[in-house]
Amino acid sequence: MVNAGDMNGSGNLMDFLDEPFPDVGTYEDFHTIDWLREKSRDTDRHRKITSKSKESIWEFIKSLLDAWSGWVVMLLIGLLAGTLAGVIDLAVDWMTDLKEGVCLSAFWYSHEQCCWTSNETTFDDRDKCPQWQKWSELLVSQSEGASAYILNYFLYIMWALCFAFLAVSLVRVFAPYACGSGIPEIKTILSGFIIRGYLGKWTLLIKTVTLVLVVSSGLSLGKEGPLVHVACCCGNFFSSLFSKYSKNEGKRREVLSAAAAAGVSVAFGAPIGGVLFSLEEVSYYFPLKTLWRSFFAALVAAFTLRSINPFGNSRLVLFYVEYHTPWRRKTTRLGKYPVLEVIVITAITAIIAYPNPYTRRSTSELISELFNDCGALESSQLCDYINDPNMTRPVDDIPDRPAGPGVYTAMWQLALALVFKIVITIFTFGMKIPSGLFIPSMAVGAMAGRMVGIGVEQLAYHHHDWIIFRNWCRPGADCVTPGLYAMVGAAACLGGVTRMTVSLVVIMFELTGGLEYIVPLMAAAVTSKWVADAFGKEGIYEAHIHLNGYPFLDVKDEFTHRTLATDVMRPRRGEAPLSVLTQDSMTVEDVETLIKETDYNGFPVVVSKDSERLIGFAQRRELILAIKNARQRQDGVVSNSIVYFTEDPPELPPNSPHPLKLRRILNLSPFTVTDHTPMETVVDIFRKLGLRQCLVTRSGRLLGIITKKDVLRHMAQMANQDPESIMFN
Amino acid sequence: MVNAGDMNGSGNLMDFLDEPFPDVGTYEDFHTIDWLREKSRDTDRHRKITSKSKESIWEFIKSLLDAWSGWVVMLLIGLLAGTLAGVIDLAVDWMTDLKEGVCLSAFWYSHEQCCWTSNETTFDDRDKCPQWQKWSELLVSQSEGASAYILNYFLYIMWALCFAFLAVSLVRVFAPYACGSGIPEIKTILSGFIIRGYLGKWTLLIKTVTLVLVVSSGLSLGKEGPLVHVACCCGNFFSSLFSKYSKNEGKRREVLSAAAAAGVSVAFGAPIGGVLFSLEEVSYYFPLKTLWRSFFAALVAAFTLRSINPFGNSRLVLFYVEYHTPWRRKTTRLGKYPVLEVIVITAITAIIAYPNPYTRRSTSELISELFNDCGALESSQLCDYINDPNMTRPVDDIPDRPAGPGVYTAMWQLALALVFKIVITIFTFGMKIPSGLFIPSMAVGAMAGRMVGIGVEQLAYHHHDWIIFRNWCRPGADCVTPGLYAMVGAAACLGGVTRMTVSLVVIMFELTGGLEYIVPLMAAAVTSKWVADAFGKEGIYEAHIHLNGYPFLDVKDEFTHRTLATDVMRPRRGEAPLSVLTQDSMTVEDVETLIKETDYNGFPVVVSKDSERLIGFAQRRELILAIKNARQRQDGVVSNSIVYFTEDPPELPPNSPHPLKLRRILNLSPFTVTDHTPMETVVDIFRKLGLRQCLVTRSGRLLGIITKKDVLRHMAQMANQDPESIMFN
Repeated sequence: MVNAGDMNGSGNLMDFLDEPFPDVGTYEDFHTIDWLREKSRDTDRHRKITSKSKESIWEFIKSLLDAWSGWVVMLLIGLLAGTLAGVIDLAVDWMTDLKEGVCLSAFWYSHEQCCWTSNETTFDDRDKCPQWQKWSELLVSQSEGASAYILNYFLYIMWALCFAFLAVSLVRVFAPYACGSGIPEIKTILSGFIIRGYLGKWTLLIKTVTLVLVVSSGLSLGKEGPLVHVACCCGNFFSSLFSKYSKNEGKRREVLSAAAAAGVSVAFGAPIGGVLFSLEEVSYYFPLKTLWRSFFAALVAAFTLRSINPFGNSRLVLFYVEYHTPWRRKTTRLGKYPVLEVIVITAITAIIAYPNPYTRRSTSELISELFNDCGALESSQLCDYINDPNMTRPVDDIPDRPAGPGVYTAMWQLALALVFKIVITIFTFGMKIPSGLFIPSMAVGAMAGRMVGIGVEQLAYHHHDWIIFRNWCRPGADCVTPGLYAMVGAAACLGGVTRMTVSLVVIMFELTGGLEYIVPLMAAAVTSKWVADAFGKEGIYEAHIHLNGYPFLDVKDEFTHRTLATDVMRPRRGEAPLSVLTQDSMTVEDVETLIKETDYNGFPVVVSKDSERLIGFAQRRELILAIKNARQRQDGVVSNSIVYFTEDPPELPPNSPHPLKLRRILNLSPFTVTDHTPMETVVDIFRKLGLRQCLVTRSGRLLGIITKKDVLRHMAQMANQDPESIMFN
Repeated sequence: MVNAGDMNGSGNLMDFLDEPFPDVGTYEDFHTIDWLREKSRDTDRHRKITSKSKESIWEFIKSLLDAWSGWVVMLLIGLLAGTLAGVIDLAVDWMTDLKEGVCLSAFWYSHEQCCWTSNETTFDDRDKCPQWQKWSELLVSQSEGASAYILNYFLYIMWALCFAFLAVSLVRVFAPYACGSGIPEIKTILSGFIIRGYLGKWTLLIKTVTLVLVVSSGLSLGKEGPLVHVACCCGNFFSSLFSKYSKNEGKRREVLSAAAAAGVSVAFGAPIGGVLFSLEEVSYYFPLKTLWRSFFAALVAAFTLRSINPFGNSRLVLFYVEYHTPWRRKTTRLGKYPVLEVIVITAITAIIAYPNPYTRRSTSELISELFNDCGALESSQLCDYINDPNMTRPVDDIPDRPAGPGVYTAMWQLALALVFKIVITIFTFGMKIPSGLFIPSMAVGAMAGRMVGIGVEQLAYHHHDWIIFRNWCRPGADCVTPGLYAMVGAAACLGGVTRMTVSLVVIMFELTGGLEYIVPLMAAAVTSKWVADAFGKEGIYEAHIHLNGYPFLDVKDEFTHRTLATDVMRPRRGEAPLSVLTQDSMTVEDVETLIKETDYNGFPVVVSKDSERLIGFAQRRELILAIKNARQRQDGVVSNSIVYFTEDPPELPPNSPHPLKLRRILNLSPFTVTDHTPMETVVDIFRKLGLRQCLVTRSGRLLGIITKKDVLRHMAQMANQDPESIMFN
């Protein structure tokens, strides 16, 4: 317990903060953390453990446990994230098939599982077996014909609507934060913002359940972004079990960065890609230690998922890929009725999607088919080429062939599916359900790519004497692989939307195993980044952060204007002077009045109002707690007591009120810059050191204060004044 | 030209720096750059171009060219680095074969090329053809027998000695900086240190030539580290062509980071691995823009190398892999005679290596063979298993078999080769020739791994009822792949030496194409990092930097001690006070005396010696130049003139000497911290902002200064006091 005697001692801030008030040192909702402070608190904790560890064996073991707790948390995150991803995959598989029919032998089997366990199935038609019944077969005993089609169509729509309705209701009632992909918010949280409950247990539970529902409902969205959110919720949950992480917002964010890597790792089956995604796209502070831990978490997660092996086929898992971010549509008329919006969009999706084979199946199966090369035995419509009857080549080395009628049909259907997908995806984004962007953008890219690929192939076949083909494409050779065009198209489209480069290529080749296609993939990534940057520098995540107005200081844009700290600091010219505390002349009442009248996070402490020489900075929260505590417990502290921030308060006359000594809540090393410091440097300092605020001085005299929000506001102003300047970076 | 009138104006530092003295703004050899200052200089330049670009079309085009020059430099680096790597590969191939024989049809053909062009060769013995003659065949017309063996042996040694002697002489005479791998120095340079000539044209030329010589001589070293150095020399060369990069040490380092990525990309044929290596191991300041550019440079380099296709077989290129760093041996008796040392080591290497088939061939071929799985047709001694005559399985799915006599012989030879390789590699490191560490460490790991793999395989075959095998290894199944053990062993050994993790795994799977082995590779990387870290936190590059005493502030070690800025700053208690300038009371002579008597890089400027309130910081170099210039050109500036750093010097009596106004060389925003700032924070600031020095104040009063060297010295002291504390991070 803190008493007057303790308060005099030479103890430090930490002793004071650790025990008496559990709230001290935490932050309020929608506020920004101070990275430097979190870091130094962790060092203090660490130092205490190290020095204690020499006292006894038990303390030594405790210190070892503490040192390894980081790896333990990673292990737990990897295990849980992998398990959840596996369960989601299995559930989605079952529920997607439920829209078309049911397994009679065991209703919880998916179509594939149902027929795999059947003995009456041959390899060729393994998806036709008596145990699996379409709804029309079960209800009206018809499997063909118009009435069966209509009944199946109707039930398909009903199931989809039912899933979507359940999902949007669950999100609305239990966990509003479970909607969207979550990546923009996670990016903001990782940069040091507090959004309470965003990574809570309810969000975890509801997001997992509703993710299954919306993916099964067949909406044009993916599960990868939401899986990153789910993994981060796991990370937050496990870090709350270890005081090292739960009590330190900075350390907690290291865990969350690693959890994001584990999330991508299970979403795509791409552990390396996950680490790079976390590094390139999501994280803000990513020291090498976090790189290693992320790597470990991603490894464990991928390993766990592979052990569950939801599809009995590790390759197929790799195509259950997507992401999502709400598009730039903040309010529409429908947006005011989120449940209705979801129902309408689901109905439209289901009605239009069912008749076209390329939109009826799940998007990941579609992508998988588009990436595929046509072997001789391939039964897909896309592979309906006219074979030369005299051909004697082995089955896996097939020359270019003329397209058959199936390919032409497929081209039409693909073109329609492409238009539909683009339109419906724009509308699906931003609905109040968990949704990801990866799969839809990849699908759009893959469809376009495949169509281009088939076009080039047919051109090359029919016109192999054209200059562009002449040198490398002899008749009878296999010159053009339309599947590769689809893969490159998917990468380019995804790259354009998210502006990923290195992580994109790694994810693509972990997904496809196509290490030899690294050069076209890299070229696609670089080109799509160039083209997209010409339209605007922001990727979809940054755009979303911007739209929501989160205080996110992007490391990607450069600040190149010629303003100085003095132009940005408050108070501006003509404004009331800065609210400051003096080191030895204010009474408790003065301080309380100042706190009441302002809502600043903290106050600079100066020698006197005249000299304005800065000696430190006091946090609002800690001031309030210290005064409240002193009034309750310290005899003689009254409204008239003088507040001292100095080291040794002078001896007071015996009848004066007992002084209140607050030096220990004073931060003696506040961050300062001079008024002549270029804003460019200030922006750099805020970014790299993760500051909340910075004081501005000239020759030691306090002039003003710059907060993170001032910096962001200034950057936005300057960007509006001169939008062109960004072009030339 | 600067004249008195100009000096009065409101121009800024940059106007002053740009033209008149070409040396201003550069740094001296073995000094550290100031990142913040370089960055703000670049922003000024950029701003000037942007504002000019609105003036005319030509200026607009110039500004566009400037914006794209970064990509152009990357393109050029990629092209040159890829070409050099291809040329080196071809030359090494030829010269390695030259040690054994010569091609009669064209002496510049390597053994393989010679026999490929021959018509009389069948596929089976394509390495035996009449055009290719061993030395014994050519000189004494004998291809078998003891005398032929001895002659070949002798010539092999002679050629090796000749190559090695030539290499060490070239390095000694023309480019001493061309020795070693260069990675530790590049790491130091990238962190902001200046080593003039280290990346110069002579180094480029000599390193390229000698690299061919030493690799051909058969020494136990690799070419990958040196290739990174070569690529960085290319980067330095091309950046000197663009003033954007040549005049700014910070921007130049961005180019060098990307060049390092291109170097690894061509060394291993691993473009993604190269980018990650640059990020994880080499670079200090690696913004996302550099990530994208590195990616592009690595892509171009890999593409160029593949177009040259030095081996006619893209897979083989992938195994020409290595690296190197001098081992911790600063002086030995031999080390004083570098040429003799090289000759002796080469002689020993050649004498011992020749008789053992696993050391005679090039290390990369050895690794390639060790990684290989044994197909049924494999003729290698390592694949001499006893086949079951009744076996009817297809050739590519062979069950575990008992080892034949060839395997046992191979095991003995491998064991001897392993011991030899470990010993000779330690001695080879640190010789004054270009040398890399990757291939030797991978070879050591691969040999150990293959031996363990064969051991486990035979155990599993003969004891498949043991508990550890029972559940997954039935008789007649293919349970154990010794090649995979070799691959994992190579990764683990390399990871232990360099402490790479993510980049290691990516390089390994780009090398081997073995995407499916990602989990064992990741596990090996993590485990070897843990084990190696238990022996000491430093990887070989950090150890080397430490050994050479470069001022390198490693981002990896954490500083967790409880010291404050006041404990580290100079002057210490009892030392003479800090050398400062006053803003308006020192004469030119006083300043000159101060400059002469001290060797500091700069001086703080204070209001007066009494108040000690800080107003700015002046660089030594700029002071000297400004005074020299003023004395030469400004009338009336004499030794008695007062130096003013204030904005508006007071009116002086008419007969007093002309004042010298130096405000424009004053840095008005020097970096300051308070004396109470924890050193942990100070270390963080130095690291993240790349400072050279930082001033220490209390309430605006200047107390002292902390330089980067003070920080490094303090960190070393604290680490020595309490070496244990590092364990618990």
